[in-house]
Amino acid sequence: MFEIDRAFLGTSHVVGELALSHVRLHADARFPWIVLIPRVDHARELEALAPGERDVLMEEIVRAGDGVRDVGLALGRPVEKLNVGQLGNVTPQLHVHIVGRRADDDAWPGPVWGQGAVTAYSPEDLATALEAVRGSLGL
Amino acid sequence: MFEIDRAFLGTSHVVGELALSHVRLHADARFPWIVLIPRVDHARELEALAPGERDVLMEEIVRAGDGVRDVGLALGRPVEKLNVGQLGNVTPQLHVHIVGRRADDDAWPGPVWGQGAVTAYSPEDLATALEAVRGSLGL
Repeated sequence: MFEIDRAFLGTSHVVGELALSHVRLHADARFPWIVLIPRVDHARELEALAPGERDVLMEEIVRAGDGVRDVGLALGRPVEKLNVGQLGNVTPQLHVHIVGRRADDDAWPGPVWGQGAVTAYSPEDLATALEAVRGSLGL
Repeated sequence: MFEIDRAFLGTSHVVGELALSHVRLHADARFPWIVLIPRVDHARELEALAPGERDVLMEEIVRAGDGVRDVGLALGRPVEKLNVGQLGNVTPQLHVHIVGRRADDDAWPGPVWGQGAVTAYSPEDLATALEAVRGSLGL
């Protein structure tokens, strides 16, 4: 049975399931930010996925890019650039970050990881963001 | 005619050409670090690639992961974790970073981008690294 690393539970909200990946909204209102977690046991690096799974992940990354753009629009802060990262230095379970960036955001032009203080979503904005990303991904 | 953004010229060394991507070794001896630049005019985001191109890029990312592992081995600092990033906040031409990380490296566990001071390769280590990555990628 595939299990999501507990580290994700306190830092993100469930969006739903795509063909390969469990989808979460990262709980930081500063950035529209999706995390994709392929449901593959013990995967830590991309090479742990079969080639067919990697192709699916690539398409899910592109779809997640549309998703973060739609979150940005819904919250009145359109995304200007996408950032995609597969790091996993802290949480080893394979996961991919898709983050919507703007030149006026809190970390621009640097990467978002480990920068500044996380800002919680208001309940209203969280509901708006989840509705937008689920609509975008058909979830 | 596809042209490499000039920003890459001063910060990395030519490795060679894969089916889709121009391959460069980032000129920072602190990390084994490959940059893949898909030879697609005006691409800035992954969505600018055709689906078939995206699949090729994914496979080239996995091969580049092997390449940075081989650079780490050749320089006596085996890679413990791969980091993959497609950011482009500063240099808009679509490119993907593949970086070999270690728990004793200069930026661990944070991301490498914008962290600390770049360390130039010695001529000997640069030759070793280029030979290793070319051997790994068959270039």
